[in-house]
Amino acid sequence: MKYAAFSLIKEPSKTRVGIVSADEKTIQELDLGVDVSEEGIVAILKADLAGKTPKPVATHAMNEIRLLAPVPRPRRNIFCVGKNYHEHAKEFSNSGFDGSAKPGEDIPSHAIFFTKPPEAVTGPNTNVIIPTAVSTCIDYEAELTIVIGKGGKGISEADALKHVWGYTAINDVTARDWQQRHKQWFLGKSFDTFCPMGPWVVTADEVKHDDIPVKCWVNGELRQNSNTKDFIFDIPNMIATVSAGITLYPGDLIATGTPVGVGIGFKPPKYLVNGDVVVVEMGGIGKLENTFIAE
Amino acid sequence: MKYAAFSLIKEPSKTRVGIVSADEKTIQELDLGVDVSEEGIVAILKADLAGKTPKPVATHAMNEIRLLAPVPRPRRNIFCVGKNYHEHAKEFSNSGFDGSAKPGEDIPSHAIFFTKPPEAVTGPNTNVIIPTAVSTCIDYEAELTIVIGKGGKGISEADALKHVWGYTAINDVTARDWQQRHKQWFLGKSFDTFCPMGPWVVTADEVKHDDIPVKCWVNGELRQNSNTKDFIFDIPNMIATVSAGITLYPGDLIATGTPVGVGIGFKPPKYLVNGDVVVVEMGGIGKLENTFIAE
Repeated sequence: MKYAAFSLIKEPSKTRVGIVSADEKTIQELDLGVDVSEEGIVAILKADLAGKTPKPVATHAMNEIRLLAPVPRPRRNIFCVGKNYHEHAKEFSNSGFDGSAKPGEDIPSHAIFFTKPPEAVTGPNTNVIIPTAVSTCIDYEAELTIVIGKGGKGISEADALKHVWGYTAINDVTARDWQQRHKQWFLGKSFDTFCPMGPWVVTADEVKHDDIPVKCWVNGELRQNSNTKDFIFDIPNMIATVSAGITLYPGDLIATGTPVGVGIGFKPPKYLVNGDVVVVEMGGIGKLENTFIAE
Repeated sequence: MKYAAFSLIKEPSKTRVGIVSADEKTIQELDLGVDVSEEGIVAILKADLAGKTPKPVATHAMNEIRLLAPVPRPRRNIFCVGKNYHEHAKEFSNSGFDGSAKPGEDIPSHAIFFTKPPEAVTGPNTNVIIPTAVSTCIDYEAELTIVIGKGGKGISEADALKHVWGYTAINDVTARDWQQRHKQWFLGKSFDTFCPMGPWVVTADEVKHDDIPVKCWVNGELRQNSNTKDFIFDIPNMIATVSAGITLYPGDLIATGTPVGVGIGFKPPKYLVNGDVVVVEMGGIGKLENTFIAE
């Protein structure tokens, strides 16, 4: 099942949630009797965990609606994994970005986690702001993102997939100069609008998590073209690692890292500029498109 | 003014907020007409920004109440600065913790930011859990913490202090092995209960931000004894840096880093063990005490 958050073009101020049809031409709105403006599809997830079936209230054509980030305002920062694809870890190391990396140290021995704030989230087909006075070293990172269903702590790798409710995509937009200069990656990953998310959430039963094509185009040029088969740490490992000391809650989001092909990997780096259109695609899930605007 | 979140011992389930008397013997409860269970003193802060004066409704003796974290559940992860005192940066480097640090690189050239999740927050006089199956390398870090009042983006250093509503203390509890092994510090800083906060918030007008004694005792032994005079990056710089690309909102929290004297600085390291009592004190603000319990 594909669940989306959206608004009607004729009533843009109200956030709604619903089921996207198999042909992606219509969306069946669900009424959960709660304000979904911040939670988005997490309201459906919670109803699902509680064994409730929300009532369909209307069907809208896709050209009558505007998709929003499936979780418009997460309850806390998004968990993000860094350097989690073999070829990207090598590319990152070869870029000279991480001056302290020693030969043979390009593949992390333990998963690397950082966060992006809830207010960085933006939806499909929105503008991502390049704050030119602050940074012009803006890069894209296509990432499969886990939506946690049932929460828990100390989740074993064997049980981990039972806690995954669905998957979506994010573009883990990054200011490379800030990421490098401030050592910890948080600041360079967290500027306003630096977390496009969508186009919707596909439930876990429809996704083969260890064989998902991950692609990214910049102005139609294919830059990233990999597969979650190339993960260094797989999804059960990521969930076991983060939940070892931290209780996970329903609706938590874990971005799983990006594959080879980012802008910093080119010599010279190919940073995003005003008007660039970036499309992130997760095979079997959907496409997320955003335009980068210099301000 | 000192503002606290608290519950009555006879009614522990309800979170209240109020003003702590100058002699710290009573607390005057304020009624804001809203649920303060998550926001705590942020509800007062918002009323203050809106020019409203909440009505006092009752006065309680301090022995009738239990202090809670002043912000029991922040709206997003807490912003935290690392390696921000000169002597601590040297101690950290000398500990061999950061194997990739080169000589002369112990003092960061730009402020280092990471985050701690809202759900790690716990109050004064609570237990911090040492999850022995996960880590036994648990360390304390006494930190002055800024409470943002008026939000903003691109805040200049000259204007920064106008955005500070008050100050509190946190203990930035850290699992050193996780902090080191996972490269980015987030995981090792974010275990459940790893963010004791309190005892209350003192408004900015009563605090000389660049001359605050910062102390920490473990079982009565003074381990940290410094002053915010030793900051590498001062408060205006921290606010300007974080707000350059990220909009700050009322109630955001910025922990400002810890001074010399942490457990990892000793040879061998002095990690916390079951039953240890840690007291963090910010001069002019208050004392925050927690007991560490192995589970």
